[in-house]
Amino acid sequence: MNLLQLDASPRLGRSNSRRLGNYFVERWLAKRPDDRVVHRDLRTFTPPHVTESWIAAAFTPAAERDDAMHRELAVSDTLVDELEAADVLVMALPMYNFGLPSALKAWVDNIVRIGRTFDFDPDAADPYTPLLRDKQAYVIVATGDAGYQPGGPMYGLNHVEPHLRTLFQFIGIDQTTFFYVGNDEFGGQRLETELATATDRITQTLSSTPSRACA
Amino acid sequence: MNLLQLDASPRLGRSNSRRLGNYFVERWLAKRPDDRVVHRDLRTFTPPHVTESWIAAAFTPAAERDDAMHRELAVSDTLVDELEAADVLVMALPMYNFGLPSALKAWVDNIVRIGRTFDFDPDAADPYTPLLRDKQAYVIVATGDAGYQPGGPMYGLNHVEPHLRTLFQFIGIDQTTFFYVGNDEFGGQRLETELATATDRITQTLSSTPSRACA
Repeated sequence: MNLLQLDASPRLGRSNSRRLGNYFVERWLAKRPDDRVVHRDLRTFTPPHVTESWIAAAFTPAAERDDAMHRELAVSDTLVDELEAADVLVMALPMYNFGLPSALKAWVDNIVRIGRTFDFDPDAADPYTPLLRDKQAYVIVATGDAGYQPGGPMYGLNHVEPHLRTLFQFIGIDQTTFFYVGNDEFGGQRLETELATATDRITQTLSSTPSRACA
Repeated sequence: MNLLQLDASPRLGRSNSRRLGNYFVERWLAKRPDDRVVHRDLRTFTPPHVTESWIAAAFTPAAERDDAMHRELAVSDTLVDELEAADVLVMALPMYNFGLPSALKAWVDNIVRIGRTFDFDPDAADPYTPLLRDKQAYVIVATGDAGYQPGGPMYGLNHVEPHLRTLFQFIGIDQTTFFYVGNDEFGGQRLETELATATDRITQTLSSTPSRACA
């Protein structure tokens, strides 16, 4: 299987999401050492924002695009290729101001592509069709305080998980598991407890779903 | 009063959000010709993404920052100054992939600033305090299809309004009005109807709230 490990934290050593994403991939490879991992790190490569000419190029049928349009979409093409080739997406991010970090939203805006990850027919009863299939997503969300998981006291302020679930369904990724690690802003024992809990949950998830995740 | 007109669309002539934001400001100035407008256009100026050194600088007390830290925060300082000076924020955006466009999220990540727009005390019962006050926000949201307004059939997929309401409350903007204009992807009469409806709603809002908005 192919894994796409996507890191959205601009932090390196201090990043809790990055640390747990690495842990997830290590555990995965310990069980399936022949699987391949592509690592896309938004700390070192930031996708450009969508522009007016990007939109025009994306909504022009592929066969009719000129060279400038192909150049406009080159980064997006690469990122969509990576996602398309992946069986498993491991996305690790810090929640920034209750939502996706802007660099990760730029990645999202590049991979939601008409004709590649969804189709659009204005005359159909349901104009939108997801084009991806048979993919699993594991999402690790690091937060400054804690309690953003479903059922937690802060879930009403969590605009990462509902948004990503909508996005994933729109393009056809329908198996998604979230892990949370909180208390980065408080540190100390409160952070250690969160890290230990998230680590345990990853370990359990990977050991208890062998047929789907690790068969 | 001071207005901050924030345009997030990368489109110029074809942008429905920009067109309605301009209409809002024109109507406002027709009633209050002496008010001042600052226009921040993310089409021509994109705030940088938050980086590891940005975070370190922002969380260093202002008196202890060195020159590099001040430079790191210079754009953020400017954007916070603009927001702080505004009595009224007029934000016009296209919904991209059910959320904020990445360039607008970059603006958000720059204006949510510890010590400027919120305060944080890890030892307090409620560690977060909003620092802005006495501001109104009017938000114009343009969408590809339609029905994203509260009560509409697509509201469950709207990750703009709930997110912005959380953000605004977090920094202290508690009077917020949303306007929606849909059907950009369908065009024709369906788009014209949406534009007319949104224009009417803006006209009504500005004429029926004279004491608050136009006194």
